Amino acid sequence: MADIRITLEELEKTLAEKFEKHGMTREDALKSAGIFTRNAADGVISHSILRVKRMVGHCDCGIIVPTNMPILVSGFSAVERYDANKAPGVLSAGFCMERACELASQYGIGMVALAHANHWMRAGYYGWLAAEKGYVGMCWTNTLPNLPSWGSMESNIGNNPFVMSVPCKDGNHMVLDTSMAQYSYGKLEVTRIAGKTLPTDGGYDENGNITRDPGAIEKTRRPLPMGFWKGSSMSILIDATAALLSDGANTASVGQYMKENGCDETYVSQVFIAIDPRALGESHFQEIEKSIKDSIHNAKPITEGKASRYPGENVLASRARAEKEGIVVSEEVWNSILAL
Amino acid sequence: MADIRITLEELEKTLAEKFEKHGMTREDALKSAGIFTRNAADGVISHSILRVKRMVGHCDCGIIVPTNMPILVSGFSAVERYDANKAPGVLSAGFCMERACELASQYGIGMVALAHANHWMRAGYYGWLAAEKGYVGMCWTNTLPNLPSWGSMESNIGNNPFVMSVPCKDGNHMVLDTSMAQYSYGKLEVTRIAGKTLPTDGGYDENGNITRDPGAIEKTRRPLPMGFWKGSSMSILIDATAALLSDGANTASVGQYMKENGCDETYVSQVFIAIDPRALGESHFQEIEKSIKDSIHNAKPITEGKASRYPGENVLASRARAEKEGIVVSEEVWNSILAL
Repeated sequence: MADIRITLEELEKTLAEKFEKHGMTREDALKSAGIFTRNAADGVISHSILRVKRMVGHCDCGIIVPTNMPILVSGFSAVERYDANKAPGVLSAGFCMERACELASQYGIGMVALAHANHWMRAGYYGWLAAEKGYVGMCWTNTLPNLPSWGSMESNIGNNPFVMSVPCKDGNHMVLDTSMAQYSYGKLEVTRIAGKTLPTDGGYDENGNITRDPGAIEKTRRPLPMGFWKGSSMSILIDATAALLSDGANTASVGQYMKENGCDETYVSQVFIAIDPRALGESHFQEIEKSIKDSIHNAKPITEGKASRYPGENVLASRARAEKEGIVVSEEVWNSILAL
Repeated sequence: MADIRITLEELEKTLAEKFEKHGMTREDALKSAGIFTRNAADGVISHSILRVKRMVGHCDCGIIVPTNMPILVSGFSAVERYDANKAPGVLSAGFCMERACELASQYGIGMVALAHANHWMRAGYYGWLAAEKGYVGMCWTNTLPNLPSWGSMESNIGNNPFVMSVPCKDGNHMVLDTSMAQYSYGKLEVTRIAGKTLPTDGGYDENGNITRDPGAIEKTRRPLPMGFWKGSSMSILIDATAALLSDGANTASVGQYMKENGCDETYVSQVFIAIDPRALGESHFQEIEKSIKDSIHNAKPITEGKASRYPGENVLASRARAEKEGIVVSEEVWNSILAL
């Protein structure tokens, strides 16, 4: 089937209808559809349109209870701990980052930890959310075991996405959104289907050799951590901080929970931090921002005409294009959403 | 010249004498010597014994004013901003992490940003400091430009070390201490001298090809960011958050400052965050900690008998060994310290 083009309005309206049909209140359905649509507009189809069907399935099977919201477990001044209470992942994560921003407006910094959460889809969304309110944002989540720790044959750690964001002039925020795997399974699949090899080493083949062949890595399910031992180490600390602060499940326990309940990924632990730079008085950040962006853009590029970019640089352009031209989706995927 | 073995007591006493001789108060000299000695005991010679001569040189040339301490610039509830005021880097960083812990004891979380700082030596020290007090610690610093952003021919970003720590049972804390370069210049040098190649790609050679030859990378001074584009992106956000929150210098400005003043690395920006898990009430962290460590240790290793390790795992053993047997130093380095 061919690709089709849908407008953001049509996408958002359709998703809101489906989410409401599968149990969300009208208000929550609109909010969730807004997040999925923004993620698609920003170019992250993998964690929006391509995940709608699975997310709706979770509403049906009970992994998500569509009318639930997180419950406050404990709090002290600038820190709070919630239990996600089976709430939809994008709503509970959005709630927590907004709450962290509120705490930051009161205390200069705020931290919210969330236990037993559903998948928040695109990690970077919550970094953008904080930056758009003028806060430095940080957040991270653990995941099911899907990556081998350095030196291990088994996938015993998570790819544990990590986000840092900085509010910049005219909405051109800098937003890091990185998982601890060098390549996602999505990227492996796309590269294999295109008949290409990865640009750098990506994982292990069946003989235990490091390879750039995406299909071989999909078979072993042993992708490489980003930076080898470095991403492995960072994944472990992301897991430990998230589980400790939320008093939730660590990656191994998420895997155990999924096995016991025969279900998809859920029950993850998340941390959200917001810092208010305005609380610290005058800053010369416009000059600093310009110096940072200039130093990235003006460095002599390896490939003539292909300057380095800062994280998040392409997002606003992608969003503007999507607003004007809509989004390209495979007809098959779109039909499967319409059928929900 | 041969290697010699010195006790921790002798090392600490000698360093304190030298630091006092070069301008520190007795109290600050003892504190600084304690940090350098701890770093050596923990196995990080590169950022302790091997940096003493340079640090003392900085006291003599004015990069460091040995009697200065950071000055409070602004503060609001749980966040504070300081100017390092040319204070010794290990003392100003130690002060800031301790202050972040105090703020966390008051507010659940605390953040201290430090502008115009001197080199803090071993980044992980401050993560251990927080963990030993029972806090989750995070800290990061920018550096001079010493790494090319992804796609750049020039070293326009910093290797910007990043630390996360979690307090664990019996002092067996998990501490991530990672720079954004895949290999440090120290590692390149050691590998070249040993006549070996790097275990993974480490940087560019003179023809612009990615290589494992440490000498070739030392020549181009174009090491790879950890995880290629991932470490490059994270380096940029570390730089931006540190400069924004401290209202200090970004990496490009650090480079500019060094050029204008014809001096070594200084004037960097740092961020310290402490979070008090005790503020959130009851936690099952002993079970979580066991589950995390077991999942690392019990995964089938690639090499029989070489289990995966968690970050910081070897530190206590190294410390205990150093306390018992002392530390091995080259006689040349030791004599150069005695001559200061």
